[in-house]
Amino acid sequence: MNRKKSSKIITMTLLIALMISGCGEKAEKKIVKPTFDLSTAKQEIISANKAFMNFLATKDSLSLANLYTKDAKFMSTGAPAIVGRKNIQSALSGLINSGITRANLSTVEVWGTENLITEEGEVSLFVEKAKVYEGKYLVLWKKVDGKWKLFRDIFNSNLLVE
Amino acid sequence: MNRKKSSKIITMTLLIALMISGCGEKAEKKIVKPTFDLSTAKQEIISANKAFMNFLATKDSLSLANLYTKDAKFMSTGAPAIVGRKNIQSALSGLINSGITRANLSTVEVWGTENLITEEGEVSLFVEKAKVYEGKYLVLWKKVDGKWKLFRDIFNSNLLVE
Repeated sequence: MNRKKSSKIITMTLLIALMISGCGEKAEKKIVKPTFDLSTAKQEIISANKAFMNFLATKDSLSLANLYTKDAKFMSTGAPAIVGRKNIQSALSGLINSGITRANLSTVEVWGTENLITEEGEVSLFVEKAKVYEGKYLVLWKKVDGKWKLFRDIFNSNLLVE
Repeated sequence: MNRKKSSKIITMTLLIALMISGCGEKAEKKIVKPTFDLSTAKQEIISANKAFMNFLATKDSLSLANLYTKDAKFMSTGAPAIVGRKNIQSALSGLINSGITRANLSTVEVWGTENLITEEGEVSLFVEKAKVYEGKYLVLWKKVDGKWKLFRDIFNSNLLVE
């Protein structure tokens, strides 16, 4: 065997070794996963809350209910949890019919990951300009088809008489 | 060059190729990260709730308060959120002094990751054998020094009059 031939063996062996080790392949297939950003998620949730306030102001219970997941739970005071979008729409219609068409939702803090966020917030409800409710809430938001939806929504009053 | 010599070249080249590729090294250094298991976390939270029930039964407000994080919020009805372990201890002392020493906490579902879990649950409170409260809650649990602690705790009544 001459020098040329032995060099050929070395080159081929190197190529086979690299193919077997799979290192080249791994590097190529590496998918760059987008980094989750909590502050962006917080802004998205603040926007969803703004939509909630706007739909309440226009007495649009259907759009309000669509901010919830289909299997959401609206955990209101004075009754067991209201389950599902249709029942939540009825509950929100009741709220609107009672004269409440203005809400002030204020996000205090959020925690979570790309598909589930827990939000702590403060809520005030108004009949025209009169504040009729002041409370606090936790909402578990779920990302469905790229949009944040209320999945679990619980609140209670800061005032002694509800 | 004889067959033996060419075989030696192949072996050495393979070894060099594997050393250069660094694959062997990577495999050794690979740290096995423990997989987060939600059902295990759920059991841990059910255990923490059992501890809550036991400390309430023994009227141990200090141990009850220690189930919360130092910066926890106890979001009770009828007042703004009670912030911090010391204030939460006072609130829980009040509960005990009112005669409530039996609670039934029942986990419905949990969501989250290794350091933050949101729990949905059902709660009943008793004065001796009489049920005086029936409600629902969301708790945001935070893992602190390897233990699940209540970080945000909000609940409300299923009954019309609280």
